[in-house]
Amino acid sequence: MSIAKYHQLYSEFLSQNAFVGEPNNLYEPMKYIMELGGKRIRPILCLVGTEACGGKVENALPVAHAMEVFHNFSLVHDDIMDRADQRRGLPTVHKKWNEPTAILAGDNLLVKAYESILTYSGNGKDEILTLFSKTATEVCEGQQDDMDFADRYEVSEAHYLNMIQKKTAVLLGCSLASGAIVAGANSIIVTKMYDFAIAIGMSFQMMDDYLDAFGSSESIGKVSGGDIMEGKKTWLYIKSCELSSETTSWFSQYSAEERVSFVQNQWRAMGLDQMLLNVANDYNDQGLSILKDLEEMGVSVNGLREILEFLQVRTH
Amino acid sequence: MSIAKYHQLYSEFLSQNAFVGEPNNLYEPMKYIMELGGKRIRPILCLVGTEACGGKVENALPVAHAMEVFHNFSLVHDDIMDRADQRRGLPTVHKKWNEPTAILAGDNLLVKAYESILTYSGNGKDEILTLFSKTATEVCEGQQDDMDFADRYEVSEAHYLNMIQKKTAVLLGCSLASGAIVAGANSIIVTKMYDFAIAIGMSFQMMDDYLDAFGSSESIGKVSGGDIMEGKKTWLYIKSCELSSETTSWFSQYSAEERVSFVQNQWRAMGLDQMLLNVANDYNDQGLSILKDLEEMGVSVNGLREILEFLQVRTH
Repeated sequence: MSIAKYHQLYSEFLSQNAFVGEPNNLYEPMKYIMELGGKRIRPILCLVGTEACGGKVENALPVAHAMEVFHNFSLVHDDIMDRADQRRGLPTVHKKWNEPTAILAGDNLLVKAYESILTYSGNGKDEILTLFSKTATEVCEGQQDDMDFADRYEVSEAHYLNMIQKKTAVLLGCSLASGAIVAGANSIIVTKMYDFAIAIGMSFQMMDDYLDAFGSSESIGKVSGGDIMEGKKTWLYIKSCELSSETTSWFSQYSAEERVSFVQNQWRAMGLDQMLLNVANDYNDQGLSILKDLEEMGVSVNGLREILEFLQVRTH
Repeated sequence: MSIAKYHQLYSEFLSQNAFVGEPNNLYEPMKYIMELGGKRIRPILCLVGTEACGGKVENALPVAHAMEVFHNFSLVHDDIMDRADQRRGLPTVHKKWNEPTAILAGDNLLVKAYESILTYSGNGKDEILTLFSKTATEVCEGQQDDMDFADRYEVSEAHYLNMIQKKTAVLLGCSLASGAIVAGANSIIVTKMYDFAIAIGMSFQMMDDYLDAFGSSESIGKVSGGDIMEGKKTWLYIKSCELSSETTSWFSQYSAEERVSFVQNQWRAMGLDQMLLNVANDYNDQGLSILKDLEEMGVSVNGLREILEFLQVRTH
């Protein structure tokens, strides 16, 4: 099955399982955020995981749905915390409604994510619930770390990588591994599937940092240099501090707009652009190496390879 | 076992299972709210439920803990929504830390509530998880209803009762019923236990409305007439609108302070104080009637009777 086919399969499930209920002010925002679109990468990963391990994709749908619902819960609450006004060109939930409603709609999405797994009755339900809970806690920890970094003078590279792993990669790992569990895969394969998704998730996230700093506005669909304008503690900022003690002064001397091209030039001169690409490539190579192991263990890796290429599109 | 004994048992479990983790800014607020105290009525109900149905109380501790953790999640988020500065005389989580941290700490408490049930490995784990999820959604619905009522011109008595049942009573029902499930009770007993807790919860909540309007400040430990000052859509307000079309004008003509004694007098003259006591008593009688059924079905109702009396203390 191709990614487009998985996407379609999940979209049909989603439209058959749209959130409805009373009061409207609780369920409309839940429906709204779920229908804002997106790549649906988490449910797709789950379905790919099931098929790769010889399971029936349809069985995984409630689990796949839980991953997407959880992701949307985190978007609604993160948008409040980050004071984001827009998402995908439309008002965020707390802007379209209000903060109390956005808090509650997020809460109910989190409950509904668990509930979706509870409706599943196949292999390893308890294992999936336990992995999902561990993941949910890590996502909270990653978001708090991210907020804490803004106020901190110094952040280590290791701590930064740990933060983005928790904030974004672990849910990809949980999605793919849960799919494998649905198919009844053994624990060695489940762990490798998890690690594969973490590796490609980290690679993707590093490329996201790269493109934000060095990509053209057209290629990324938003103004480039956003992180530099914000003075965000990204991998580039952290590495720059390690290599040059003047880094912080660049961020205090210039206005946000003037800063972008100055810092871009400094970072290019320091070779940070290439170093970041190398980090992203290392994660990608890790992913490829795990893929090889999985293939040798009898897993059908075509879908996983397609996912890897799908997530790589943005690097070019 | 007496209520004091159940309280002690749960308190010991809680101190052995205090939330610890990194980052501190996530786990400290979770620990803080859990240690603010309170009656611990929900975990006590769960333990009472287990013992009443002949189960081993110790087995129910992780489930009992989940009910208390969920309750604390709802307190943290409700305090943000209600803009409450204090709880039990101490700053609320979003005041002591900030709103983003309070949102996240609440989210992680919700996850930890599920996780606590996941560590339980006795009777009816799936049944408990499903009841708990249904309850969690109802609590969200009740809170949204409560917020919606503030902006609504007319609220029916039925809708108001449904709101407080969801906002407060269902978690009591879930707690007691889960305890019965831990003991392996049959579904008829589980349902009766649930209904018993709903009835005494509703009675308690009605008495809370009564005391807020008519209780002396000393007896309730806060300024009486708070709901009248706020113009809150309580049972009394709703019934008053049904009986007198002048009700809304009383709430717009006077200043908040002058309004209290005026409205109290009007409501007493209309007999609303006694009508509300009657509603509370009806719920209490429902509870007593269910208690009798349970006793005839072989349930040890001493603990349930003690709970009923414990919650009645505030009526005198």
